Amino acid sequence: MDEFRLIERIHNTIEDKQPGVRVGIGDDAAIIQPNAELETICCVDTLCEGVHFKRSTMKPADIGYKALAVNISDVAAMGGKPKYYLVSIAVPRGWSDDEVLEIYDGMQSLAQQQGVHLIGGDSVTSKSELYISVTVLGEVAKGRALLRSSARVGDVVFVTGSLGGSAAGLEQLLNQDANPNKAFVEAHQRPLMHTGVAQMFTENSTRMALNDISDGLSSEIWEIAESSDVHIELEESNIPMPELMEETFGRELSLRFAFNGGEDFQLLGTVSKEDWPRIAEEAKRIGDPLTIIGHVIGKGADVTLNSTTQKTRLVREGYTHRS
Amino acid sequence: MDEFRLIERIHNTIEDKQPGVRVGIGDDAAIIQPNAELETICCVDTLCEGVHFKRSTMKPADIGYKALAVNISDVAAMGGKPKYYLVSIAVPRGWSDDEVLEIYDGMQSLAQQQGVHLIGGDSVTSKSELYISVTVLGEVAKGRALLRSSARVGDVVFVTGSLGGSAAGLEQLLNQDANPNKAFVEAHQRPLMHTGVAQMFTENSTRMALNDISDGLSSEIWEIAESSDVHIELEESNIPMPELMEETFGRELSLRFAFNGGEDFQLLGTVSKEDWPRIAEEAKRIGDPLTIIGHVIGKGADVTLNSTTQKTRLVREGYTHRS
Repeated sequence: MDEFRLIERIHNTIEDKQPGVRVGIGDDAAIIQPNAELETICCVDTLCEGVHFKRSTMKPADIGYKALAVNISDVAAMGGKPKYYLVSIAVPRGWSDDEVLEIYDGMQSLAQQQGVHLIGGDSVTSKSELYISVTVLGEVAKGRALLRSSARVGDVVFVTGSLGGSAAGLEQLLNQDANPNKAFVEAHQRPLMHTGVAQMFTENSTRMALNDISDGLSSEIWEIAESSDVHIELEESNIPMPELMEETFGRELSLRFAFNGGEDFQLLGTVSKEDWPRIAEEAKRIGDPLTIIGHVIGKGADVTLNSTTQKTRLVREGYTHRS
Repeated sequence: MDEFRLIERIHNTIEDKQPGVRVGIGDDAAIIQPNAELETICCVDTLCEGVHFKRSTMKPADIGYKALAVNISDVAAMGGKPKYYLVSIAVPRGWSDDEVLEIYDGMQSLAQQQGVHLIGGDSVTSKSELYISVTVLGEVAKGRALLRSSARVGDVVFVTGSLGGSAAGLEQLLNQDANPNKAFVEAHQRPLMHTGVAQMFTENSTRMALNDISDGLSSEIWEIAESSDVHIELEESNIPMPELMEETFGRELSLRFAFNGGEDFQLLGTVSKEDWPRIAEEAKRIGDPLTIIGHVIGKGADVTLNSTTQKTRLVREGYTHRS
């Protein structure tokens, strides 16, 4: 099937008209008209076969889900509401058209859940690997975005959910574990989005630093420390980890997964002690509870980690794809 | 050099603050605040090594230029003004950091010429090929975008510039021609953008169908015919071709280049006979003259081609990357 017919087949499946979209799929570009009270958030992220996923560990629909998820998570980490997406996909000959359609099905399942709408993109041939690049546009009320430069001395440091599950799931998939833990695998293939709690943050807090954990806690916390020029102290014993992870992989490897595994797409933030009780209560109420993992203890970019036996400088050792 | 340091090096070179940008590079996503009287245009397009370019025919800076150009051209084809861009690049091990920086230099040279500003993106490793995906956001006055569905019976069909030069240049590069024609090579590696004339169109015309010629004239004219449900007749003898192309390649191959070569990024449009003289005069005045190549002669999606000897149905045989 040639490019034009495949794209048509994809768009026939999932195109949907939206009030904010003046021109969607089918012209040279899409045209949107955001409300004048809002700012537009934009981000783009790419998944490459053999680098970010293998066909043995991710089904086509999982790849689609995740390619959109990594971007929705970035919009959430700004306190925004994801609204529209564009997809650029490069497909090598080894993939069937049906598999490509499954990728779009996977994106669409997440898109529907999140109220996000496909407005454009393109599809080309690649020589060897599948590449999928997704652009997401979102909205945030004027001046209310949550930036990583907003941490202040005295803040509480928190995360959503638990950390390390995605790396644990990947480990079991790569080892072809006969009986992998479903929750770990799900964390890797279909990470949950935290857009609801993120929008609650912008509505309930006047100041908050926020990142999503795509590259690992150690790397993301350093980004906040550096952008805000603050010293953050984390408590190792407070890091929330998924059930059965320590039992399965032991304490040391579990901590590695939690700090450096990445791809959990939890939100990592700092907020004032005064705002914390209200924020924590509200997060619990909407079913996405937060855990305190540390505090902002001083000025000057630094991150230390308190374990039961020692206090060390946290090594920035994120999941870096170019190494 | 790892991902973080390379990105930092790139951004240090080219970051620039803009009034419409509230958050640029460096957080999870960028935030823009378009003027309330405007609509936001968005598009994304990807170039893959080995499919859209070879290292033997395109220098790194040319690849960057073209990756941004294909998207700026899409915004122009909507009658819009390109404003911001995001870049997602996947780089295999065979490329040095300096070569990656040259790619960004090539983008930036076009970005500066067009007043377009880098606001975000990401950089990852790929396994085999270089892959570069660019998202461009642009603006157009509310309700003034030029859509391919706007052609009407009686319209004049026109193009900017000349057609086939890019394919001719690629042919000479692939043949390692000892003395390639500089204009053809330039048309392939550094195609000119028509954003100026495109904005003049939106200011001077109440209705116009417009496409950019990325996939070849035969494919793009069919898109207008189908989207507008009109019958278009083209005059083969009126197709503007670059100087020396026929002398170099002969009439038959030159016509193939012009109709099916693609990547010329000229604008192809239709406008009423009443608007035509004013539009043509204005285009000439700003140095981007138009040529009439046909007319919209009736209802019902169809394209015929008049040559000196016969009238035939135009075969839709664009430059399709997935075939």
